Amino acid sequence: MTENVAGKGLLHRRGLLKATGAGLAGGILMPVMAPALAAEPSMAKSWLTTSGAPMDEYGAPSKYAQLKRVNIGAHPYGPGAGSSSTPLESLNGTITPNSVHFERHHSGIPDIDPAQHTLTIYGEVKQKLQFSYEDLLAYPMETHTYFLECSGNSYSNVIFPDAADKTVGELNGLISCSEWTGVPLHYLLEEAGLKTDANWIVGEGADAASLTRSIPMQLATKNVMVALYQNGEPLRPAQGYPMRLFVPGSEGNISVKWLQNIKVQKTAAYTKDETSKYSDLHVDGKADMFSLEMGVKSLITSPSGKMKLNRKGVYEISGLAWSGAGGIKQVEVSADGGKSWATAALQSEHRTLSLMRFRIPWQWEGQTAVLQSRATDDKGNVQPTRAAALARYAKANIYHYNGTQSWQVTNEGVVKNVYA
Amino acid sequence: MTENVAGKGLLHRRGLLKATGAGLAGGILMPVMAPALAAEPSMAKSWLTTSGAPMDEYGAPSKYAQLKRVNIGAHPYGPGAGSSSTPLESLNGTITPNSVHFERHHSGIPDIDPAQHTLTIYGEVKQKLQFSYEDLLAYPMETHTYFLECSGNSYSNVIFPDAADKTVGELNGLISCSEWTGVPLHYLLEEAGLKTDANWIVGEGADAASLTRSIPMQLATKNVMVALYQNGEPLRPAQGYPMRLFVPGSEGNISVKWLQNIKVQKTAAYTKDETSKYSDLHVDGKADMFSLEMGVKSLITSPSGKMKLNRKGVYEISGLAWSGAGGIKQVEVSADGGKSWATAALQSEHRTLSLMRFRIPWQWEGQTAVLQSRATDDKGNVQPTRAAALARYAKANIYHYNGTQSWQVTNEGVVKNVYA
Repeated sequence: MTENVAGKGLLHRRGLLKATGAGLAGGILMPVMAPALAAEPSMAKSWLTTSGAPMDEYGAPSKYAQLKRVNIGAHPYGPGAGSSSTPLESLNGTITPNSVHFERHHSGIPDIDPAQHTLTIYGEVKQKLQFSYEDLLAYPMETHTYFLECSGNSYSNVIFPDAADKTVGELNGLISCSEWTGVPLHYLLEEAGLKTDANWIVGEGADAASLTRSIPMQLATKNVMVALYQNGEPLRPAQGYPMRLFVPGSEGNISVKWLQNIKVQKTAAYTKDETSKYSDLHVDGKADMFSLEMGVKSLITSPSGKMKLNRKGVYEISGLAWSGAGGIKQVEVSADGGKSWATAALQSEHRTLSLMRFRIPWQWEGQTAVLQSRATDDKGNVQPTRAAALARYAKANIYHYNGTQSWQVTNEGVVKNVYA
Repeated sequence: MTENVAGKGLLHRRGLLKATGAGLAGGILMPVMAPALAAEPSMAKSWLTTSGAPMDEYGAPSKYAQLKRVNIGAHPYGPGAGSSSTPLESLNGTITPNSVHFERHHSGIPDIDPAQHTLTIYGEVKQKLQFSYEDLLAYPMETHTYFLECSGNSYSNVIFPDAADKTVGELNGLISCSEWTGVPLHYLLEEAGLKTDANWIVGEGADAASLTRSIPMQLATKNVMVALYQNGEPLRPAQGYPMRLFVPGSEGNISVKWLQNIKVQKTAAYTKDETSKYSDLHVDGKADMFSLEMGVKSLITSPSGKMKLNRKGVYEISGLAWSGAGGIKQVEVSADGGKSWATAALQSEHRTLSLMRFRIPWQWEGQTAVLQSRATDDKGNVQPTRAAALARYAKANIYHYNGTQSWQVTNEGVVKNVYA
């Protein structure tokens, strides 16, 4: 038994939830999808009769999975400047494997020897301090799962006049999520001793671009850490080895990688990295600065761009939602381009400032459809439509776009990015 | 200000917690550990002046991190039989990166083409079903973070007459933890339709060893999944690509990798894999079979075997706790070999059937110490001492050992495995 709860085939989320809770006694809520089998299984494949590969020190994915970053591209601003995106269409769950975490570098990936690297805290402090990597490893740490999103994520849907035929990762893959472990920054600032006028910290990276960003002290002492581990292992060089700032919920670039200096100041530094970039232009020519919090946002990752539905029947619509303001309270899904909405199941761990996986069953019998999702966070912020998101800024502004992602499904089952 | 709460230098866990909650206003609870700095930071290192490496499709760790599996060893039972362990001493947080997840293979790692692989459900069912990989990708899924532990984990501490000078990973690294995503098995069993006598499932792998294990239906329909993703990405070949059973909380080998058949039966199959191995011998010659649940257990991962304390002062003692019966309620830590105990902070997400990270500050001023941890789960089960754990079974039994791990610290700061 299935129950339609919104247009174009959306089924009640308890199609998933009820069966999960009640087990076998709960009845069969999903229609049969697998073909019945007549014969017993046979043995014919090589892997059933021949010993497999030996173990190795550091494993790798299957060649059949073809897992790799997408949109790897140099930016024209300087040597080593560029970005790469997470292939969201190939993933499920909420964790992004470190090997395909999105990247944004301003002068390539430095190969830092931790024995030669130090973190120095100076400026408006009672005592300048310098920490080696080994020093920090003995400090109290915390572990939290947080998303990281580039403030320029989803820029294709802003700058292209027509919706491009791209995958969800190519369009929106400057978002990833990891379990981060590090030393709460406030410990180190307490140890240095803040002076009265210590209103900002200015973090500087040890890359050749010396990426430098200012962070208000209230934010810097909230849940910011000097991160040393990502998804269990020491940070990768591409993510700031041996140490980075991590500012949960805020635009990615203030989580300064290869962190070498924290200068405590009365005022912000107004560095090149926060004036020439990462400020948000309005129609009247004024720009927001230090608009650090990322907005509430969601994406359907399956079905999504360049996928093809190869049979009729029930599919799970699944995607990701997040907000820089806190946790996710609700995700609604539409199959008719926003005319009617159904509430999806929030099916992953309920955390703050992290990715949430949402799921809802959908019956596709060859009808055309436009799939959308709309997230609401626990502060009551609702993800805007594409039109409303674009209207907030001047046309050239690519930062902080969080409008609806729409996927058109043709009656041949072809899935494409559309502006709807 | 610090407060001693147990012998040999253990400090109150709120040394960590209070400062975290109260921020800068909470006062400095940790003593100064970083040397004060006289001069401003200088610029001299190559990575500050030269552009770094370009991006790549699939990233890798720093060469300086030297992250790799340990104890990679063939077992003498057949071609491709063997295991490798997770380097717990190199990790922090709770997630194990897929590349260093422990392995236990019975005939090597098959390189399966998912287009040629099917999962068949047959036996005591109303309708035999066969699922392709693509079929399963459209099914309703769930995401949960679970530990996986080999039933033979920590066997060194059982079979060696004297405590070996090994790392925590070499001794106890047949435990890992991942975010698993897959199709709840009860969906597929409901679709096939269970007959009245359907009391067991028998899962068979598509490796050349055809590893085959029986699971009681009550357990199989609880929270078991056909896992398709691990830590976000499709399963690795070493972990069962394209699909495996995942039975949370139970000994690792029943989470059958490369799953190709589920036969539903009236009784268990009593396969070679559950009679010659994975049964627990008692002193009277009888053996437990289908003793699947893993016991409550904990390990201090830092400081741990083969580490060296290079200075006096405060260190964070940190480790992992888990239980096959549910969640972790409490972890106590001792620095005096179990004479006095202090309660550690449980500092990671509070999940069920997952790894929990515990932390407590410890002041080391050159005193000798024996560090131990003791976990209690939310069912009230308490981790036994080494002596009590060994007394439960015959001398030759290496399965389900969950006794206390003890680390001796000499007054030179050398850390060693000891039986205490």
